[in-house]
Amino acid sequence: MGFEQAWLSYRMNVEAGEWKGISKIYADSRNPIMKNAVSELQKAFREMMGIEPVLCSDSREVKADTGSICFKLDRERKAEGYHIYEEDGNVVIAASSECGWLYGVFELIRQMQMESSIKGMNIEREPVMPLRMLNHWDNMDGSIERGYSGNSFFFDKDEILVEERIVTYARLLASVGINGTVINNVNVKDAATWLITDRYFEKLSQLSEIFADYGIKLFLSLNYAAPVELGELDSADPLSEEVRAWWKERMKLVFTQIPNLGGFLIKADSEGRPGPFTYGRTHADGANMLAEAAEPYGGLIIWRCFVYNCKQDWRDYKTDRARSGYDNFIELDGTFRDNVILQIKNGPMDFQVREPVHPLFGALKATNQMLEVQIAQEYTGQQRHVCYLIPMFKEILSFHTYAAEVNDTVEDIVSGKTFKQTKCGMAAVANTGNDENWTGHDLAAANLYGFGRLAFDPSVTAEELAGEWIIRTFGKDKEVRETLLFILMNSWRAYEMYNAPLGIGWMVNPSYHYGPSVDGYEYDRWGTYHRADHIGIGVDRSHHGTGYAGLYREPNASMYDNPESCPDELLLFFHHMPYDHRLRSGKTVIQHIYDTHFEGVELVDEMVKRFEGLEGKLPDKAYRRMLERFHHQKEHSREWRDQINSYFYRKSGIADEKGRKIY
Amino acid sequence: MGFEQAWLSYRMNVEAGEWKGISKIYADSRNPIMKNAVSELQKAFREMMGIEPVLCSDSREVKADTGSICFKLDRERKAEGYHIYEEDGNVVIAASSECGWLYGVFELIRQMQMESSIKGMNIEREPVMPLRMLNHWDNMDGSIERGYSGNSFFFDKDEILVEERIVTYARLLASVGINGTVINNVNVKDAATWLITDRYFEKLSQLSEIFADYGIKLFLSLNYAAPVELGELDSADPLSEEVRAWWKERMKLVFTQIPNLGGFLIKADSEGRPGPFTYGRTHADGANMLAEAAEPYGGLIIWRCFVYNCKQDWRDYKTDRARSGYDNFIELDGTFRDNVILQIKNGPMDFQVREPVHPLFGALKATNQMLEVQIAQEYTGQQRHVCYLIPMFKEILSFHTYAAEVNDTVEDIVSGKTFKQTKCGMAAVANTGNDENWTGHDLAAANLYGFGRLAFDPSVTAEELAGEWIIRTFGKDKEVRETLLFILMNSWRAYEMYNAPLGIGWMVNPSYHYGPSVDGYEYDRWGTYHRADHIGIGVDRSHHGTGYAGLYREPNASMYDNPESCPDELLLFFHHMPYDHRLRSGKTVIQHIYDTHFEGVELVDEMVKRFEGLEGKLPDKAYRRMLERFHHQKEHSREWRDQINSYFYRKSGIADEKGRKIY
Repeated sequence: MGFEQAWLSYRMNVEAGEWKGISKIYADSRNPIMKNAVSELQKAFREMMGIEPVLCSDSREVKADTGSICFKLDRERKAEGYHIYEEDGNVVIAASSECGWLYGVFELIRQMQMESSIKGMNIEREPVMPLRMLNHWDNMDGSIERGYSGNSFFFDKDEILVEERIVTYARLLASVGINGTVINNVNVKDAATWLITDRYFEKLSQLSEIFADYGIKLFLSLNYAAPVELGELDSADPLSEEVRAWWKERMKLVFTQIPNLGGFLIKADSEGRPGPFTYGRTHADGANMLAEAAEPYGGLIIWRCFVYNCKQDWRDYKTDRARSGYDNFIELDGTFRDNVILQIKNGPMDFQVREPVHPLFGALKATNQMLEVQIAQEYTGQQRHVCYLIPMFKEILSFHTYAAEVNDTVEDIVSGKTFKQTKCGMAAVANTGNDENWTGHDLAAANLYGFGRLAFDPSVTAEELAGEWIIRTFGKDKEVRETLLFILMNSWRAYEMYNAPLGIGWMVNPSYHYGPSVDGYEYDRWGTYHRADHIGIGVDRSHHGTGYAGLYREPNASMYDNPESCPDELLLFFHHMPYDHRLRSGKTVIQHIYDTHFEGVELVDEMVKRFEGLEGKLPDKAYRRMLERFHHQKEHSREWRDQINSYFYRKSGIADEKGRKIY
Repeated sequence: MGFEQAWLSYRMNVEAGEWKGISKIYADSRNPIMKNAVSELQKAFREMMGIEPVLCSDSREVKADTGSICFKLDRERKAEGYHIYEEDGNVVIAASSECGWLYGVFELIRQMQMESSIKGMNIEREPVMPLRMLNHWDNMDGSIERGYSGNSFFFDKDEILVEERIVTYARLLASVGINGTVINNVNVKDAATWLITDRYFEKLSQLSEIFADYGIKLFLSLNYAAPVELGELDSADPLSEEVRAWWKERMKLVFTQIPNLGGFLIKADSEGRPGPFTYGRTHADGANMLAEAAEPYGGLIIWRCFVYNCKQDWRDYKTDRARSGYDNFIELDGTFRDNVILQIKNGPMDFQVREPVHPLFGALKATNQMLEVQIAQEYTGQQRHVCYLIPMFKEILSFHTYAAEVNDTVEDIVSGKTFKQTKCGMAAVANTGNDENWTGHDLAAANLYGFGRLAFDPSVTAEELAGEWIIRTFGKDKEVRETLLFILMNSWRAYEMYNAPLGIGWMVNPSYHYGPSVDGYEYDRWGTYHRADHIGIGVDRSHHGTGYAGLYREPNASMYDNPESCPDELLLFFHHMPYDHRLRSGKTVIQHIYDTHFEGVELVDEMVKRFEGLEGKLPDKAYRRMLERFHHQKEHSREWRDQINSYFYRKSGIADEKGRKIY
């Protein structure tokens, strides 16, 4: 399958004279990262301006002309930081490492595309989050769990692919500052269990080297029960000496055979995956065993906190899945080795369109933490609906946990500021596949772009990110920019409006997670209920109910616990409320449901109408791909509206104040 | 995979002295059918009595001794009929054909197993329905659509299997009088389209010959678009001369290459299958084209009436899927060729636990008709719940259509009595697979057994069939017989009680069709709705609504049209009724829902309790297989009860009069 270049397509014309004046690049490109950096720079000049700056071997100290780009060593900077400045009409990229220079180059290309002025340029940046990772849920048979953009480009028929596309993938990641990638699904089964054996070392090394040359560490998802499933031991008990010795040997082998391996991601004791619970051990026992074995090689053990009872009885009103991550891990705070990181989903459930922030953030004080978000749009329209998620991530990152007097936001925690940590950051479940445009919906690429940029620099706004992504992908046309910006910036809001109301979530078709089904998960085993009856709806997670609200630090706990102070958008997540309860907005719950569902569809109609105005202004192929999806979204948002409204009208018997059509 | 012998296991001891006195069999067993008949007889004597009657070559005219079984030609009988009688201490089986003798032998073995007296024996029978067929929904990759007993024993990896098991399969069918079988799924795709090409003729011929020697005709499901999908023509227009010529050639080839081929089953213009609608033609055009081509070879074209709009809008209250079979075919009555048979499902929807009889029965007067039932328990517990369906089939067969003054039941119609037809009968979607016991649940074999026997002789009661099946399968133990009879005879009733109430149907998980999901199909495209709101539930199919009730002949039409006269068990199929409406039983709708769901589970508990008492009295393997399923049914019937009750309690707000636990 062919592939496009996304925001690195360099299809726009850069017209600014200043940039056209660049004629030389001074660089020592013997180092492979530098070679990639310089090559990228040349490509950008060639494709956007039709000029080929002369590449001069490194002579940073002797430059005297203007119109050159040169690289300067600045040992004071952090490894991935850079300083770009104009000096006597030349552009200087200063950094302490090749990685810093590479990031500086991508920054410079971005400035070029934005047609910033070279004169007086002075940009100093270093990544705010140490780890900025993608998690691919790719299976080795080529399928992708929750993949909406074709099949895997890493795997097919239990083999590892090393294809031309991988280089473009690495360029895309590096261009937005992503420095780690887990290439296989966290549900490690079948062939994937064998990734840590010599069956796959050769190909993994090749991948790993391609990544290394773009500053990206390779990570693998690990099968906790590997010693058993590979047929070598009868147990995976983390306190067994035999098991510990096995892992030490295995880690030695794996880290030796795969250079540039960053470590492992583990989903244990979750949704059928094996883990230390089998042996009556804690997750700290399990993670620490692996961490001890990986430590000599600088390996990280990233351990997911997505652990809950997935065989719950819907008749049980006491057990609360939202509590489970907290309850399973809070007691372990401070007991993990230094090279263990707990990876925590943004919310306590599972990537719904609206959830409160996970209560482990701010509760764990002595444990390395990473924030896990999902740009694969599992519950947010599966890349058939447009849903730009960066505004949601911004809200999550800016949430005050009150874990400290200052620097208490989620961003502060995963940036290492709150607890002075260096092994922390942010991971996104990836939205890519082997579709020509990488992400199925062309606009979904904004989430990949935005995620990387945001993890590098959370201060940038969602609107800025959308704006620059549009220019870099589709060029400078004002109508294109304004229209796509309108669409992106309204898309999450619109999706939430016609989706499950007021934070309750889960009103989707089981398994597929696409399309409305109000009772789809209501009588199931997954701990995902709305408890709607003819009087009201919502889960009582206050102190009258499951007590979940009390897991937050004050004043958050009290705010959520009281329906009067609980934000409207999360009211039904925290409280069971009658349909005629008046929200802080002044509307009743039921009228809010009707209004948002009608208005959400109207907003989609507006988006689609504006999009159709772009015909001829976008590459034809991309326009047609998007148009088809927009037409589907238009129809499908009506399905959401009508099913949700009909369900609640039939159940409550309360008519819409505005008399609109409900079935 | 190994396989058992089901009701031909001959494991009981026949102790009656009369039977032990049989010492000779006079038969000319050169004909392959006779060879099979005699071999079966010998096997039965050997295995159940340990005796080996001497086989004497045919000398029917000269026998003089007693204690013999002999075969007599009686040219007056119909081809498949037989007369068994005692004459001077000998048993005579008189028939006009080998097939009649074969059926006579199986009848005799049955009598032997029932330990009937030989003295004075006088049994004359001929099949009431001319065609008694199985429809296998087996795919050529080995999977079975709606199969709950393992994989196909006809196909694997796009190849046809001809294995030892097939002979036992043929014996089982012949033993209950089944005389035709369609071996491949009606959804004909991929490799199955090629069954009418030389790729498969050799194996099909082999299968066909095995069947022929047991009096069974081989049928195939046909892809209507075969000329196109085989890549030979651009069209499948039934009025195109080119297409007609293609089919004539093809039929010539196929019938020449596969001896004993009975004809074809076709699902056209249904659920995505191609058909004549593509070319603006009628189903009569399509069926007649094929029938004309098959006619020279005596081939039958069995055309399914399961044609409906499967992309309906749930918001549309006018379109009624229940009407579609009628509306699509009624105008075509009398226009089909004589070798076309319309195959009509028992109800207008799709094999729900309760449906009214299909209104085409009694409406079509000049068209060959077959009744299609489903012993594959797609909607009736998938062979994990026990559900003996013969009582349901008995009700359907005895339904008065009022199409004639006398002989107006469904049984009369499909037996050919009502309209003097000979190409008619009954087909069952098969419940077999390559499981050791053939049907997954051991008790599900009673449906296969009962179906065949019933099509041969609809006068036999469901209880008689169950009783003899139990004895033949598990022997004479009284407690075994009484317990299994109690279970079988209560099983459909129990399943209906905890399933969707009062004929409404469809409250199942989409696609899988297993387990409760009240709204599972409510907002979907399949035309399957319950329309429940906080006031009431049901589909108005009266003259106020879709008018479906009016499709029946009087007095049925009026009976169904009026909620006061409509039978309780179908009330919600025909009417939208408030929850507090009082049924003819005196209970309100809502209280009926609660009561039947609680009582249905209690009935299951009683069944399971009684079954557990059989430990040690049944073959251990069979006992354990059934026990596991009974435990699942016990738990799963609670899931049905609680979900249905909770749904309606939450929606109606009306409490259970008896105060039982609802969630």
